[in-house]
Formats: sequence, C-alpha cells, structure tokens
Amino acid sequence: MTTTTPQHDIDSPENLARRRHGQSVLAQIDGHQGEAVVDSLAGISPALGHHVAAFAFGDIYDRPGLDPRSRQLVTLGVLTALGGCEPQLKVHVGAALNVGLSREEIIEAILHAAVYCGFPRAVNATFAAREVFTERDDDAARTSGEASQTSTD
Amino acid sequence: MTTTTPQHDIDSPENLARRRHGQSVLAQIDGHQGEAVVDSLAGISPALGHHVAAFAFGDIYDRPGLDPRSRQLVTLGVLTALGGCEPQLKVHVGAALNVGLSREEIIEAILHAAVYCGFPRAVNATFAAREVFTERDDDAARTSGEASQTSTD
Amino acid sequence: MTTTTPQHDIDSPENLARRRHGQSVLAQIDGHQGEAVVDSLAGISPALGHHVAAFAFGDIYDRPGLDPRSRQLVTLGVLTALGGCEPQLKVHVGAALNVGLSREEIIEAILHAAVYCGFPRAVNATFAAREVFTERDDDAARTSGEASQTSTD
Amino acid sequence: MTTTTPQHDIDSPENLARRRHGQSVLAQIDGHQGEAVVDSLAGISPALGHHVAAFAFGDIYDRPGLDPRSRQLVTLGVLTALGGCEPQLKVHVGAALNVGLSREEIIEAILHAAVYCGFPRAVNATFAAREVFTERDDDAARTSGEASQTSTD
Amino acid sequence: MTTTTPQHDIDSPENLARRRHGQSVLAQIDGHQGEAVVDSLAGISPALGHHVAAFAFGDIYDRPGLDPRSRQLVTLGVLTALGGCEPQLKVHVGAALNVGLSREEIIEAILHAAVYCGFPRAVNATFAAREVFTERDDDAARTSGEASQTSTD
Amino acid sequence: MTTTTPQHDIDSPENLARRRHGQSVLAQIDGHQGEAVVDSLAGISPALGHHVAAFAFGDIYDRPGLDPRSRQLVTLGVLTALGGCEPQLKVHVGAALNVGLSREEIIEAILHAAVYCGFPRAVNATFAAREVFTERDDDAARTSGEASQTSTD
Repeated sequence: MTTTTPQHDIDSPENLARRRHGQSVLAQIDGHQGEAVVDSLAGISPALGHHVAAFAFGDIYDRPGLDPRSRQLVTLGVLTALGGCEPQLKVHVGAALNVGLSREEIIEAILHAAVYCGFPRAVNATFAAREVFTERDDDAARTSGEASQTSTD
Repeated sequence: MTTTTPQHDIDSPENLARRRHGQSVLAQIDGHQGEAVVDSLAGISPALGHHVAAFAFGDIYDRPGLDPRSRQLVTLGVLTALGGCEPQLKVHVGAALNVGLSREEIIEAILHAAVYCGFPRAVNATFAAREVFTERDDDAARTSGEASQTSTD
Repeated sequence: MTTTTPQHDIDSPENLARRRHGQSVLAQIDGHQGEAVVDSLAGISPALGHHVAAFAFGDIYDRPGLDPRSRQLVTLGVLTALGGCEPQLKVHVGAALNVGLSREEIIEAILHAAVYCGFPRAVNATFAAREVFTERDDDAARTSGEASQTSTD
Repeated sequence: MTTTTPQHDIDSPENLARRRHGQSVLAQIDGHQGEAVVDSLAGISPALGHHVAAFAFGDIYDRPGLDPRSRQLVTLGVLTALGGCEPQLKVHVGAALNVGLSREEIIEAILHAAVYCGFPRAVNATFAAREVFTERDDDAARTSGEASQTSTD
Repeated sequence: MTTTTPQHDIDSPENLARRRHGQSVLAQIDGHQGEAVVDSLAGISPALGHHVAAFAFGDIYDRPGLDPRSRQLVTLGVLTALGGCEPQLKVHVGAALNVGLSREEIIEAILHAAVYCGFPRAVNATFAAREVFTERDDDAARTSGEASQTSTD
Repeated sequence: MTTTTPQHDIDSPENLARRRHGQSVLAQIDGHQGEAVVDSLAGISPALGHHVAAFAFGDIYDRPGLDPRSRQLVTLGVLTALGGCEPQLKVHVGAALNVGLSREEIIEAILHAAVYCGFPRAVNATFAAREVFTERDDDAARTSGEASQTSTD
C-alpha cells in the first residue's frame, strides 16, 4: 500500500483491483441483475457500490469455505427473515437459480423459513420469487420467439 | 377424522400420530436438545410443543424437497438475522453438525450472513456457535475420560 | 394415517380434510380476502398455501382458548411491529372488522402499538387500515348505488 | 403553560401532573413491577422514565377507546414479535394477569403470535410468561405460608 | 389541568397548546413534508397525528440536550435499521438536509449503518435518499425556471 | 496483489496491512473493549474478526466524510433499533464517550430513538449505557484509590 493512497480511497489501485475482482465474482453469480445494482449505486453512493462489490463479493462470497449453493440458501434465509428487502431478494433468487438451486428448492427454502420467521414474511418472499420466475419465463419466451422469428426469416 | 375430535384437539389419535412422527424427525436431527425444548414446553404450552413437533418437524422439515443440510443453512440464516434467538440458534447449530455441516461451514455461513444482516448479529451468532462447539468438546473429553477410566479399571 | 401417504403429503385424505377445515375457518373470518391469498399461493407454493389454511387457520385460529376478536388484536400487534407486511395487515384489518372490532378500536390498537414499536411502524399500519376502510366504503357505495339503481328501475 | 417553563421541562407543574397521572394509571395496571421500571430509569434517564409514565400510560393507555384487556393483547403481540424485550414482556404478562387475562389466554395469545412471527420468538415469550407465573406462585405460596404461620401464632 | 378535561383529551386547551408547539418545531425542521404527514393522519387517526406533533416533536425533539443535526443522525440510523419505513426515511432525509447535514454526510451515515444492519437495508435507504435529492433538484430547477421565466417577462 | 495470494486470504500481506490499519483505528476509538471483541473472535472466526477490523474500521469508520462523533450517533441509533445487541451497544457507548459524546448526549440520543423504535428497545439501551457508565465510575474509583494509596505510601 503506497503512502499516498489511504485504505479508504476506493479508487486506489489496490481498491480498484479489489472492486474489479468482486465485480467478476458478482457477474458470475448474479449476471446482469447484480451489476445493475452496483451500477445504480455508482451515481449516488460510489463507496456503497464499491463495498458491495469488493467486500461482499470479492472478500466474502469468493471464500472457499462454503459453496455458492449453500451461500444462497443462507442468503434466502436472512432476506426472508429481514423483510422489506424484496429488491435484494429478487436479485438473490436469480442468483440462487444461477448457482444451481431449482425453483422447487427455492420455494421449499422459503417455506422452511416460515417456521422460524412466520408466514407473512414467507408469503412476501414467495411472491418475490414468483416475480423472478415469471421474468425468466418471459425472457425465455421472448428469446424463443426471436429465435423462431430468425429461423423463419 | 372422527366427528368427536376436532382438528385443534392436540390429543386426538390423528394429532398424537402427527406429534409422534414429528418427534421422531426431531430426534433424528436434533437429538436430545430438540426433545428437551419440546419437553420443557409441555408443562407451560402443550399446544406450542405439539406444533413444534407435529408442524415444524413432522409437516415441514420432513418434506423431501430439500435435504436437511440445506434446511439447516436456511435456518442459520433466519436465526442469525432475527437476533435474540440464541437458545434456538444453539439447538440448530447442534442440528447442523448432526446433519453433516462442519464447524467451519457453520462459522462461514454466519460470516456470510453478516453481509446481509450486519456484524453485530453475526458476532452474537458466532459466539452462540462457539458455545455449542465447546459443549461438544467437553462432552467428548468427558466421554473419552470415562472410556479411559473404564479401560484402566 | 395410512401407510402409503406420508404426513407431509398435502394431498392425502387427512391433509385435504385439514386444509378444507382451515379454509372454512378462514372464509368465516376473512371472507374473500383470505381465500384470495391461499388461491394465489396455490400456483407457486401449494404447500405454503396448504399450511396457511390447515395449520394457521385449521389448527391454531380455530382453537377455543381465545376468541377471534382477541386473536385479531394480537395479530394487529404482531404485524404492526414486524413492518413490511402491509398486504397481510390489510387482510387482517378486514378480518378484525369481520369479527367485531370497530374501526375506532383498530386505529386505537395501532396507536397503542406505537408506544412499543415506534411511530413509523404505527403510521404505516394506520395508512394500511385506512386503505381497507376506504375500500369498504367504496364497496358499500357501489352496492348502495346498485341497489338504488335497481329500486328506480 | 407559563412562559417560564417550556413544554420539554419534565418538572414543570403541568408535566409533574401528567407524570403523576400516568403513574397512577401504571400502578393500577402493573402494580409494583411497572413502578419499579420507572423508578430504575429515574437515576439514569429521568426523561425516559417521565415519558413512560406521562406519555405511554397517562396519554395512551388511559384513552377510553380500548379496554385494558385488549391493550394487553396488542402489547403481547408487539413484544413477542420484537424479540429481545423479555424484561418488558414479563412486566406486561403481569399486567395482562392484572387486567383479567387468564394464564391460558396469555399462553394462547403467544401461540397465536407464532403463526405470524415464527416459533423461536413464541418459545422465548412462552418461557418469559412461565417465569412470571412461577414468581406469582412463589409469592402466593410465601403469603400463604406467612398467613398460616400467623394463624398458628 | 382542569377537572373537566382528562389528560387523554387531545383537544383540551393544554393539549392543543402542546400540539401547536410541536407543530411549530416540526415546521422548523421538516417544512411542508412533516406537516403533510400530520395532516394526512388527522382524518384517520387524529390521536396519532397529535402525538407525532405534541410528543415526538414538542416533547422530545425540542429538548435542548442534543442538537437537531445529531438527532437526525440518530434517526437515520434507526430508520435505516428498521427497514420498511421508506416514507418516514424520506421525510427525515429532507429534515437532515434542513438542519444542516450535507448530501454527502447523509449518504455516508447510511454507508456507516451498513456495517451494523447489513447492506440490503443500506441500499434501500440510499435509494430513498436519492429520491429526496432528485425531488429537491427538480424543485430547484422548476423554481429557477420560473425565476428565469419571470426575469424575461 | 500478487498472483499467489487471492483476495480472500486474510493473511496475505495486503490483508494483514488492512487489518492492522483497522485495528489502529479501532484502538483509537474503542480502546481495549473493541480489541477484546476482535481478539475473542480470533479463535472461533478469524475471518469475522479480520473483517470487523479491516472492513468495518479500516475501510468504513476511517473515511473522512463523517466525524467519529457523528458515526457513533448513527451507530447508537442502529443498535438501539436492532435490539438484542447489548454487548455491541456497550462497546459503542464506550466508543461514543471516547470520541467526545457526553453521558447526557448518549442518554438523550437513546431517548430520541424511542420515538422511532419504541420504548422497550430504548429502555434496554439505556440500561446498557448505565452499565458502561458504572464500569467507568468503578474504574475511576479504583484508579483514584490506587493513586491515593500510592500517594500515602
């Protein structure tokens, strides 16, 4: 660490490298959704965006001690219990699908959470998951339609 | 369901069967710890004890859609996020060990939760996990001591 | 319980009977609103919908130890305190009216909750209650208008 | 309000009257337990103690729109849902008994809350209630013993 | 306090004076936004509106022990942690600007809160703050446009 | 960052430097209390201890955008609202004193939080603060006693 850039400077070469690494982890897991959150934070709270990427994904998510599937199960539990985090829950339902959890497993995980945090939070989380599934179905239908359109050109 | 025992009667033959089934699921997962909670509820809120066994374990935990290891990861996430549930967290850290999560994975799951519910809740959960690990070590030392004592008799 | 249908099978004859009983309790209390929630869960998480009906209403709500008016007061307290459960709060404000709480008592219950969970949660709950009252007034006005329309035909 | 004592002066004649009125409401409902909380706050945060008495009990609890039994049901719901408020829950379980709720109704109210805020919070609240019941039994046994002692003198 | 108006009567001369004083404190801090909340409560829960003004602002906010800037930092911490209070958070972000916190300090305070209550709550709070900043910019642009329009008439 | 030490390796030279820097920030603010938490985490979750130091204090707390006094006000708000974090609250009440908040300001900040998160949480936080004040008084008395002892030798 050079003497001229303090640790808190999110644009130091070290922190830029950390952020880029975190963004690559995030991109692998969340695809476009996660990047969109970091991008949308860039304009209002660049440091929050930096730490979501560099700390949450670069430092923590990337650790070898727990596989991504297990991490998403923990995250689904935390976000269902917290409540009021539907946008984040949707990103992480998408991530859960990306790392190999099935739709049925995600719905089952939320049902399981109901025992510990009550039905209202579980109902909200279930509907957030449904939105993600519907968006994926719509995307698939559109892609399929475009493919079919292309094939008939 | 007979006409003489309403559904809410926790001592109807049907509910007795459901409770016993739940207790067997609970015993497989939590061993003595979970049974102790249900037993200690029996004197003050028999219906709460019944539903912990019959509903939480008999109806939900036993469902085939998610393996016990995955269920415990969700539970660790929920209980870490809720806070103030250290007794339950200790039972479920024990359960997590019983269904095959390693100590390192449990500690890692709690670290992962810190990103989403903050450091204070994660620190509390980590110390609750440590208590369980220490109790297990003490039990193992005692058992080993007894075994050694026996072998030298 | 037959040997061929495990307890977790929500479509076993026993569980179908439990769900139907719960739905009848729910219909008495919540009318169409509660049924709508269970119906909307059916497509995405049938088991969650089943347990809302069979467990929450069939097992718990129907118990004789506390009258529906008292249950709704507890529920208003819990949902106001949790926050982020406005859809569920609206269903239960409707249920509270159905079981005999006046609008004034509901508003007073939420004011009372403010002491223990703070003003912001209470303000949100009050506005959720207002939405229910307005919907009821609109329904009454429409029904009255239709009746008046009919009478002048 | 005189020009010399601002509204925030908790020792103005007006606020002293408000606090005394609140304390009389509190004494009627909570007996010694509630007074003990206000007294113990007096040394560290006199203003918090003042507002617990003057606002929470003098302004809100004393309002005619909801009977004390109903208020305690709301309070049990809020405190069970919040978690981590066992000391306050114990005071309010005592208050619930004082205003006419039976032990069975209190335990049932907490069971009911479990549906909406999950089992762990309900288990904690049930054990807090049990502590209050045990203390009352111990007090009754001691009083009975003293009475018996006196009668044999 | 006269014998004919009980303390809980929010329209007694004493309480009217308390409410008016609270409204003047609120107006100084929150400007139109806070008044709008109290006004919108007046139709559905006049007592809640009264206590927001008389208690929250007249009794507490106006106390000399902590300056408004410090109070808003505490409030930002509480509301970010609670979650689900975005409308209140927006009012208090506006209030924070009014009492002298800069946009950068508000965003930094929310980033700081992330350490203790997790990233999802902080992201939601950051976006709520952005909405307030955008509204202020739009108002400024409109005012500037009108001024420019006026100056060219 | 060398190619041989991944970002998540908390013992890489970069991360060791980050942790040491964070520990120095922590030591300035929290003195022995904060170090004790990190030390006690070292044995059970070294990564959590690392990130409390490197991220929470090195990355966030040390940022120039908000002075330590303001940060502690936000932290008091968050921890009071969360509840169940009394150990962390005690550390941060100590830190608040260290960075220049008076006892009266801390008690006032918690009273202010009561408006937004309810009285029970505020009462718990007030008693946690009292414990810190008492410990400081005891330390001061002991030190003074030792000094006096020394001076009379």
